[in-house]
Amino acid sequence: MPSKPSKNLETFKNPAPDRDYEILFEIPEFTCLCPMTGQPDFASFNIRYVPDQLCVELKSLKLYMWSYRDEGAFHEAVTNKIRDDIIGAIKPRKLFVEGDFNVRGGIRTIVRAEYDARAK
Amino acid sequence: MPSKPSKNLETFKNPAPDRDYEILFEIPEFTCLCPMTGQPDFASFNIRYVPDQLCVELKSLKLYMWSYRDEGAFHEAVTNKIRDDIIGAIKPRKLFVEGDFNVRGGIRTIVRAEYDARAK
Amino acid sequence: MPSKPSKNLETFKNPAPDRDYEILFEIPEFTCLCPMTGQPDFASFNIRYVPDQLCVELKSLKLYMWSYRDEGAFHEAVTNKIRDDIIGAIKPRKLFVEGDFNVRGGIRTIVRAEYDARAK
Amino acid sequence: MPSKPSKNLETFKNPAPDRDYEILFEIPEFTCLCPMTGQPDFASFNIRYVPDQLCVELKSLKLYMWSYRDEGAFHEAVTNKIRDDIIGAIKPRKLFVEGDFNVRGGIRTIVRAEYDARAK
Amino acid sequence: MPSKPSKNLETFKNPAPDRDYEILFEIPEFTCLCPMTGQPDFASFNIRYVPDQLCVELKSLKLYMWSYRDEGAFHEAVTNKIRDDIIGAIKPRKLFVEGDFNVRGGIRTIVRAEYDARAK
Amino acid sequence: MPSKPSKNLETFKNPAPDRDYEILFEIPEFTCLCPMTGQPDFASFNIRYVPDQLCVELKSLKLYMWSYRDEGAFHEAVTNKIRDDIIGAIKPRKLFVEGDFNVRGGIRTIVRAEYDARAK
Amino acid sequence: MPSKPSKNLETFKNPAPDRDYEILFEIPEFTCLCPMTGQPDFASFNIRYVPDQLCVELKSLKLYMWSYRDEGAFHEAVTNKIRDDIIGAIKPRKLFVEGDFNVRGGIRTIVRAEYDARAK
Amino acid sequence: MPSKPSKNLETFKNPAPDRDYEILFEIPEFTCLCPMTGQPDFASFNIRYVPDQLCVELKSLKLYMWSYRDEGAFHEAVTNKIRDDIIGAIKPRKLFVEGDFNVRGGIRTIVRAEYDARAK
Amino acid sequence: MPSKPSKNLETFKNPAPDRDYEILFEIPEFTCLCPMTGQPDFASFNIRYVPDQLCVELKSLKLYMWSYRDEGAFHEAVTNKIRDDIIGAIKPRKLFVEGDFNVRGGIRTIVRAEYDARAK
Amino acid sequence: MPSKPSKNLETFKNPAPDRDYEILFEIPEFTCLCPMTGQPDFASFNIRYVPDQLCVELKSLKLYMWSYRDEGAFHEAVTNKIRDDIIGAIKPRKLFVEGDFNVRGGIRTIVRAEYDARAK
Repeated sequence: MPSKPSKNLETFKNPAPDRDYEILFEIPEFTCLCPMTGQPDFASFNIRYVPDQLCVELKSLKLYMWSYRDEGAFHEAVTNKIRDDIIGAIKPRKLFVEGDFNVRGGIRTIVRAEYDARAK
Repeated sequence: MPSKPSKNLETFKNPAPDRDYEILFEIPEFTCLCPMTGQPDFASFNIRYVPDQLCVELKSLKLYMWSYRDEGAFHEAVTNKIRDDIIGAIKPRKLFVEGDFNVRGGIRTIVRAEYDARAK
Repeated sequence: MPSKPSKNLETFKNPAPDRDYEILFEIPEFTCLCPMTGQPDFASFNIRYVPDQLCVELKSLKLYMWSYRDEGAFHEAVTNKIRDDIIGAIKPRKLFVEGDFNVRGGIRTIVRAEYDARAK
Repeated sequence: MPSKPSKNLETFKNPAPDRDYEILFEIPEFTCLCPMTGQPDFASFNIRYVPDQLCVELKSLKLYMWSYRDEGAFHEAVTNKIRDDIIGAIKPRKLFVEGDFNVRGGIRTIVRAEYDARAK
Repeated sequence: MPSKPSKNLETFKNPAPDRDYEILFEIPEFTCLCPMTGQPDFASFNIRYVPDQLCVELKSLKLYMWSYRDEGAFHEAVTNKIRDDIIGAIKPRKLFVEGDFNVRGGIRTIVRAEYDARAK
Repeated sequence: MPSKPSKNLETFKNPAPDRDYEILFEIPEFTCLCPMTGQPDFASFNIRYVPDQLCVELKSLKLYMWSYRDEGAFHEAVTNKIRDDIIGAIKPRKLFVEGDFNVRGGIRTIVRAEYDARAK
Repeated sequence: MPSKPSKNLETFKNPAPDRDYEILFEIPEFTCLCPMTGQPDFASFNIRYVPDQLCVELKSLKLYMWSYRDEGAFHEAVTNKIRDDIIGAIKPRKLFVEGDFNVRGGIRTIVRAEYDARAK
Repeated sequence: MPSKPSKNLETFKNPAPDRDYEILFEIPEFTCLCPMTGQPDFASFNIRYVPDQLCVELKSLKLYMWSYRDEGAFHEAVTNKIRDDIIGAIKPRKLFVEGDFNVRGGIRTIVRAEYDARAK
Repeated sequence: MPSKPSKNLETFKNPAPDRDYEILFEIPEFTCLCPMTGQPDFASFNIRYVPDQLCVELKSLKLYMWSYRDEGAFHEAVTNKIRDDIIGAIKPRKLFVEGDFNVRGGIRTIVRAEYDARAK
Repeated sequence: MPSKPSKNLETFKNPAPDRDYEILFEIPEFTCLCPMTGQPDFASFNIRYVPDQLCVELKSLKLYMWSYRDEGAFHEAVTNKIRDDIIGAIKPRKLFVEGDFNVRGGIRTIVRAEYDARAK
């Protein structure tokens, strides 16, 4: 029975909350729509975080990224939204989100957003 | 005013029909749906042909590839369908279509179909 | 409900039997046991074929490759066995199987076996 | 209706001004004229910035880079001018501009200029 | 006479305990089972440490990595367990463990854990 | 005193006309204008030939490629025109011309034209 | 109990003598002495063959390559001797031996010898 | 009228002296003579600097590098001499010079010298 | 006592004249002078041959390539002259000479000449 | 007259002792014997140092590395011994030694040792 795209990021308990360590996801399969033209955009995302009490569940992350498929999204805004949604779901100690968008008009665009709970 | 995905491949007159020469398109931005699970599949396509009287118009090719975005498509079938649609549109002297599909279940799948009008 | 490793290669009907075309699987996740020492061996396999009436179903191929995980297998013999099992399952027009085995004793070993139904 | 080369960098409102994040443009399609000989020079530019209240609009950036096509420009001067024009247009928090110029006389020249509003 | 997989990490005396220096192991041959589905997972591990009085013996490290072959193991947990087992065996001055897991669901996962005895 | 772009391909006497040998030029610095939009296109050209009585003079080739800078040119047509102009200038025994055009609309286009005097 | 370098190439029965297939060994760890100066030379060897009734046993191949460690050997002669010794040991259907010798005097030397039993 | 090799590094006024920025030259075409044997040595140089009031003129840099062609020069000494000559010519704020010399006796040698006017 | 550049290619007896085999030299250290401007040109040469009764001695090949250092030489002519000199020295069964010349005027030039004694 | 392997590292006077600069040797041709099995081990070494009054002479370094050819040497111990011998010979300001040992038992081992005279 197939899964459905969903904005819901599921979590599981961090198995080693006594230490800082890093989890990195490479996600080359991201696509959304250009809000100006309605045409598809494609990007590759890297998400890297230091968990606190919760980790991101891998399958729900896949569905979350899929949920943008039929939405209009500007490069700068969508990268920051993914950052904010992950913060909302797992309250990590640190987070780095990078969206690497395919060439449009001869220009490749990469957006990089960070978060550090201790820097607050 | 935005374009729309379309199965219609537009053409233009081959500017040098007195000779055999080759046109190659690299198209990394292809996505469709898995007919079994409904989940997105991603592929990179290479299309190479020797034109006869007609050439494939670039923008309509982009829209054609886009038209698979919401369709279910098996790897083997969609690669052969793209081959057949290009033959139908421009009746090329030769054609090569390659679909290189992202890893599923630890396996990457590449499908390669050809056509040679003179071999008939 | 999880799948189980199985020697059974499932098939589906070739969607384009009127033409020769090529399907290539890249399978970096193969492991078996060394029949001499019982220790694990690792390999990456490439399987390339021209289907006749049947194609190899992707998920059953994954389970088939997995079925070697607890078996002793010599490099030369297992590559030829995989070739023979695929011929038995789908009777392809052409087949190429390559096993690329990780370095042992400072030497990397690659075994390549082929089949051509028309050359018989 | 075609666009025209223009020195005018258009902007849009930063969607996430509450945080520092980075936007990187890779622009391999830059050409100008050598002020000494009148012959074409070619370069690839990387532009990376942390926006404050404004972001650079992608299409106007393409037209801006295009505007150098018929101008004479020394490597060191043009890289600094692009830096200054972007500062003038969006007053970023940080900026990095790199021009990587093709080999002339057996030598490849790369010019890198930076800006940090907080370091003032 | 073949070796057997074992959780026992053997050690030898550090030949140069008067200085900090670094030992790095690249181990591309790691496989375990997914605790959810029972199917095989594959990873490549990098282990880097500054020894104190003891070093990790190479052959026992091979057997230790092999010992996970028939065990269920989550990516985040197993990387941290390997870190903890090495700390238990050799009490290093510093340690870095990275597990780079093959693509599942279109996503590659890398887990990185560290240890610094002096930071305690 | 600077050179000027020119359609005139200068030649020199082949120093070894008693044998077939090959001369290959790699020319990454080609730009022309899109005849539809007036915007710049960029390409990298490879030109490979077997000379008969004449060779292409290198500096005039640079000026010849430069002469397209302010002209509108379709990918397929300009590649064939360069082929024809070289045939006109040096009547080579064999010729291969490849234009590799930068991504437009997510698609990279490569055009390859050949000539073989003996095949006539 | 350690092995010793030996010129003796051991063999085992080809598990699939009914077909032509290929076995390739990559051996980056070859060293001998320069017969002119007595100084060490280093090379990487590729050995590729189609077995007839016998295959080369991997461990004896390692010891065989090791046996050159204290011998003087010219690049051209040693590559041909390895070819001849393998022919003597297993009488293959086809054989290719390549020795790729490290730079001496600014020049890298590669020697490639072949054998085809059916071409006799 | 051809240029001549010359030790004279010409300069031009820094177009942006109000800021620190970096200029990098990649010069793969350096050759001198070994002072021991008289035989040619080859190197690739990288020169990177932050200009103060003056910049290095590109053509004179080419002639300067050429001036070593018939001179004997040890790797360590020539790299430091190039550093000192550039300091003498333009008094930069910072300078980095790297000479990467081709393999001799199985060993590749890289020499890296720096200068920081503010560190004095 | 240093060697001197020399046009004399020394030879030694082919150790395996009963068979066709191939010897390949990669020579990245070639420099001559441009006959037009007197300025240095740089190239990398590949020389590949099937010996008959004689082989090229490696040290004399180095000195031979060095002998062009102070000579004016056009790309097309010098590549053919090296081909002819090797034929004169060793009368090989087959020969391939490739000169790959560094970028001048934005264009890289490669010249490839061959010889086949049996094709005469 | 051939050289002989020797533990004696010869030196020459640093031509620029008034400054810190770096010398890097890449030495891919290192081999010793495994003290456990007597079989050959292979490694590539990088040696990087800031000279004080003395530099390492290149030819003696080659002979020094050669001197390990017939000696048993553990990875960790030999890397530290090379570090100590260089310190003994030239008393550098800084030193970094890295031994990168070929795969044994599916594991590649890299050992990195440093020295900083000023940190004492």
